[in-house]
Amino acid sequence: MQTYNLLQQIDSPADLRRLTVKQLPELCDELRHFIIEQLSSHPGHLASSLGTVELTVALHYVFNTPNDRLVWDVGHQAYGHKILTGRREQFHTNRQMGGLRPFPFPTESPYDTFACGHASNSISAALGMATAVGNSRKVVAVIGDGAMSGGLAYEGLNNVSETPNNLLIILNDNNMSIDPAVGGFKHYLQDLHTSSAYNGLRYRIAKALTDHGFLNDERRTRILRFNNSVKSFLLGQQNIFEGMNIRYFGPNDGHDVMQLVRTLQRIKDMKGPKLLHIRTVKGKGYSEAEKDPTTWHAPGLFNPDTGEVKKAQAKGVKFQQVFGHTLLELAQSNPDIVGITPAMPTGCSMNIMMKAMPERCFDVGIAEGHAVTFAAGLAREGKRPFCNIYSSFAQRAYDNIIHDTALQHLPVTLCLDRAGLVGEDGATHHGAFDLAALRPIPHITIAAPMDEAELRNLMFTAQSGNHGTFVIRYPRGGVPSDRRAPLPDWRTPMQAAPIGRGRCLRPAAEGCKVAVLSLGIMGWNIPEGPWAHYDMRFLKPLDDAIMEEVADRFTTVVTVEDGVRNGGLGSAVLEWLADHGHTPRVVRLGLPDEYVEHGSIRQLQTLTGLDPDSIESTLNELA
Amino acid sequence: MQTYNLLQQIDSPADLRRLTVKQLPELCDELRHFIIEQLSSHPGHLASSLGTVELTVALHYVFNTPNDRLVWDVGHQAYGHKILTGRREQFHTNRQMGGLRPFPFPTESPYDTFACGHASNSISAALGMATAVGNSRKVVAVIGDGAMSGGLAYEGLNNVSETPNNLLIILNDNNMSIDPAVGGFKHYLQDLHTSSAYNGLRYRIAKALTDHGFLNDERRTRILRFNNSVKSFLLGQQNIFEGMNIRYFGPNDGHDVMQLVRTLQRIKDMKGPKLLHIRTVKGKGYSEAEKDPTTWHAPGLFNPDTGEVKKAQAKGVKFQQVFGHTLLELAQSNPDIVGITPAMPTGCSMNIMMKAMPERCFDVGIAEGHAVTFAAGLAREGKRPFCNIYSSFAQRAYDNIIHDTALQHLPVTLCLDRAGLVGEDGATHHGAFDLAALRPIPHITIAAPMDEAELRNLMFTAQSGNHGTFVIRYPRGGVPSDRRAPLPDWRTPMQAAPIGRGRCLRPAAEGCKVAVLSLGIMGWNIPEGPWAHYDMRFLKPLDDAIMEEVADRFTTVVTVEDGVRNGGLGSAVLEWLADHGHTPRVVRLGLPDEYVEHGSIRQLQTLTGLDPDSIESTLNELA
Repeated sequence: MQTYNLLQQIDSPADLRRLTVKQLPELCDELRHFIIEQLSSHPGHLASSLGTVELTVALHYVFNTPNDRLVWDVGHQAYGHKILTGRREQFHTNRQMGGLRPFPFPTESPYDTFACGHASNSISAALGMATAVGNSRKVVAVIGDGAMSGGLAYEGLNNVSETPNNLLIILNDNNMSIDPAVGGFKHYLQDLHTSSAYNGLRYRIAKALTDHGFLNDERRTRILRFNNSVKSFLLGQQNIFEGMNIRYFGPNDGHDVMQLVRTLQRIKDMKGPKLLHIRTVKGKGYSEAEKDPTTWHAPGLFNPDTGEVKKAQAKGVKFQQVFGHTLLELAQSNPDIVGITPAMPTGCSMNIMMKAMPERCFDVGIAEGHAVTFAAGLAREGKRPFCNIYSSFAQRAYDNIIHDTALQHLPVTLCLDRAGLVGEDGATHHGAFDLAALRPIPHITIAAPMDEAELRNLMFTAQSGNHGTFVIRYPRGGVPSDRRAPLPDWRTPMQAAPIGRGRCLRPAAEGCKVAVLSLGIMGWNIPEGPWAHYDMRFLKPLDDAIMEEVADRFTTVVTVEDGVRNGGLGSAVLEWLADHGHTPRVVRLGLPDEYVEHGSIRQLQTLTGLDPDSIESTLNELA
Repeated sequence: MQTYNLLQQIDSPADLRRLTVKQLPELCDELRHFIIEQLSSHPGHLASSLGTVELTVALHYVFNTPNDRLVWDVGHQAYGHKILTGRREQFHTNRQMGGLRPFPFPTESPYDTFACGHASNSISAALGMATAVGNSRKVVAVIGDGAMSGGLAYEGLNNVSETPNNLLIILNDNNMSIDPAVGGFKHYLQDLHTSSAYNGLRYRIAKALTDHGFLNDERRTRILRFNNSVKSFLLGQQNIFEGMNIRYFGPNDGHDVMQLVRTLQRIKDMKGPKLLHIRTVKGKGYSEAEKDPTTWHAPGLFNPDTGEVKKAQAKGVKFQQVFGHTLLELAQSNPDIVGITPAMPTGCSMNIMMKAMPERCFDVGIAEGHAVTFAAGLAREGKRPFCNIYSSFAQRAYDNIIHDTALQHLPVTLCLDRAGLVGEDGATHHGAFDLAALRPIPHITIAAPMDEAELRNLMFTAQSGNHGTFVIRYPRGGVPSDRRAPLPDWRTPMQAAPIGRGRCLRPAAEGCKVAVLSLGIMGWNIPEGPWAHYDMRFLKPLDDAIMEEVADRFTTVVTVEDGVRNGGLGSAVLEWLADHGHTPRVVRLGLPDEYVEHGSIRQLQTLTGLDPDSIESTLNELA
């Protein structure tokens, strides 16, 4: 039975700062154990937060938070931060509806300085903060090496030295995104390390070069200006940071808390932008997680003593599995198919094809914009790219879709995973905007399967012909387990899904003038009743035949979608009806014009009126 | 009188390849002169294309186009490419309606391989193409140093060495975007140069270090692997490209065509990804343009002999001037106001404030995502950022708006310049999607001024209070000169614009049941007639009072906007009416569900039914 002698005294970073430096390793042990214990029974992101225990303690110990600002990049790594900043007792509510948010958020705590659900934004945000505050506060950005593959991080870095600021960037380098990190940039980081004899060597080398006449005044000036050129030389590689006029320190052992404290104390008052590179181990201190950090990124419930992950009871097949197996199946018969994922091969199940056909799959790192433009380039030369992006992250590829795929009418298939409500990951992660944002784009086809067979048929359809940018959006998980029994035989033969054709699932009872038009898995939430029910399947193009039938026969049309109400299916239906001179009553059900917070998907459906009971009430009032 | 002895023989690159290398300088002279002559009477992008004359000739001379693929980044620089690839005789139609497109586009020519209106996409696209074609073709991407500040270019670079490909990247380095280049990355480029003694020195230094015991085996291995570490050391800086495992060549003089040909011939068959860095002068060969490349980026009509730019007759004040002067005026009384522009200080007129208050303005380079997240960071610490982005480029900041400003309800003002139809820059540059794309986002206010005074009042309103992300979108130029006389006294005192309040410009004549709701400058295109006319001013929130009045009094509602019809003002009006139980006939005028090509703004309005005559016809049919 672990006791939390030190941790239980820490109700704020001010308490932490009353400890001696020598007590910090013990506190780190307690914090790490507390995280493991809590997460074993309250699922969340484990491995990232275990990797940042020492960094978190050191930062709050050295910096005067919350006056000084810590900006985290991707909140996965910030559980220790939450626990040390007055939220220890509430931590068991993490990610639950009404409980702590999944990621730091300013309205939750003064220690949370900026939203951090999507990767790569910390440098830009912290640079804005550091520029604004001048010398009145210190600002620290913590960014992982995985997040460094995002273009936004580079845009931020590229601007750091352009204006006066004292920003400190901590590069938390564990060589991982959720899956292993990719990209040329990681080669830098893998080779960056310090030599203990570095300082001495630097001057001896300079002297030797001068003696041999290699170092004239001009060269010496350059060397002084870029003072780690010699280090570059010794280390056999280049340091991008110093080249951008950002002072570079490290790499340090990110699990030696006392050394981290000493380093931070030494550099925190230095003027100008600087970067401390630390090496950490994702999952540190929990051997199962260290061995397999991808699985232990967010393991769900587990036994902390045995490391046994408690598999959620099988609830039928997930759309992710269907996508993964179907992609491989299609690729086996269509040699032009290639797969692209921005850092989510495991999450989206492209790892199934990747294992069988590694040369035809591309994990491009956290780089959604590149993923889409790269796919467009592949399509331009005759490939049939399937690019899988989580819906909310695809927001980063909006211009790439408009400018690089749709404009040129290239046959790129965008599979948007995690569409609609995602549950516990909350406001930053719901795939709420895809339908409304993509619908205005020309040369685009947008479909949402209601079940496994439809996903397979849509993927089958997308691989041939040219339907422009073919968007297939589907949610996390499977069809609602309380609405339908599992489907053991989901690997049905595939057939083409006619573009822009939906289906009538249930005709109206005699005399009922209400028609329900649903999209994707929302179809499962439409209760039985006297109303007609159509599964539209395609948001764009809308099914003209269904629309004409509905306009002719019904006086009330109810649209149901798990995206924002403004601009999505409901608007498309209103537009169609107006353009064709029909004026039935239209009731639009969907996500509100607010950011939806975290909770279980069913809780959030209830909150937004999209659960079966709420929909039934609405329909009964209208029928 | 220039004669085009060589140029007139070149109807395709095959003709070019029949010349001797020694004839190429003369051809370059002719090509350069032809561009100047043509552009003096047919306005377009001058300075960029003058800078790439030699590169263009050398590329088509050495590579077997169109079998080999040239991918341009930003079509500004590709006029020479058009002229050499069979479009010399049509070049006078460039940018005109029905004439050559403003930027390369695949449907126009087999030599145009990929759309290139927005900067920074060439590496990603060309990497996709190079990956797809394997060894069957060569693929070359040409990217400017300005475009290298975009995150997409970095994401592309970061992936170049991850898969087998033979991509050649040409870095066309002129130290400019449209305005001078910014960012830490340019420091790299400024310091990269070759030493003629480099090769010899490299080995002598290695020997000296070995003799002194500094170079053990491990270090030597590293040095061999990163073979330009020594170069780095000598040059006092780091080479990011070789660090990413991309072979680096250069910098070369980009205006020595014979040397360029030799260099390209030497490296074109090398396996693996490589980068050739060339130095060019924007505006090369035309002294006026060399002296002031920003003005000569797209100078309009000019006298090629005297360099006199023929100023377009003053047609009243432009929204750009109003923005620029008003921002400075507000900043003078509100010390929290700061200005941010991604590489467009001159185009958007932020250079007015920049000149007066350089420390409060930030040109962040071509980096729209960073611009918005940086603004969010500034707002988080109490600043009032005005971030000005061209509407079509703001598509690149879509996630940043959703995740970094709106979600946190930060008071960032986004001034979207070049909204609506932009004219000759065509499909990639129309600000067509902003209204539809931004409206679904919560915590956002969207306004469009109809005239100068409204722009001033909206900016005045945006600087205080917290209206979430405050979007003010306005077009290139001013109010239509044929609709209203110039306003010499536009600097009216400012007053707050009540949020979500429009105005009635004209009540309906007795018995007319038609109401027109327009947004922004579309208001000027609504002809007089018996219908009522409301200037909505705000897309979000919609004016409830106007909507109630309209719903009560009229049976037909016509919406007019210069954005895509799907999802914009028309949809917002339909949604409001449906939500409030009204069912008038609604006719939506706006841009179609197609990419609109190039032409004058008035021509394109006619094409899309948005000119005054077309609108009048529509209204007369409905009234």
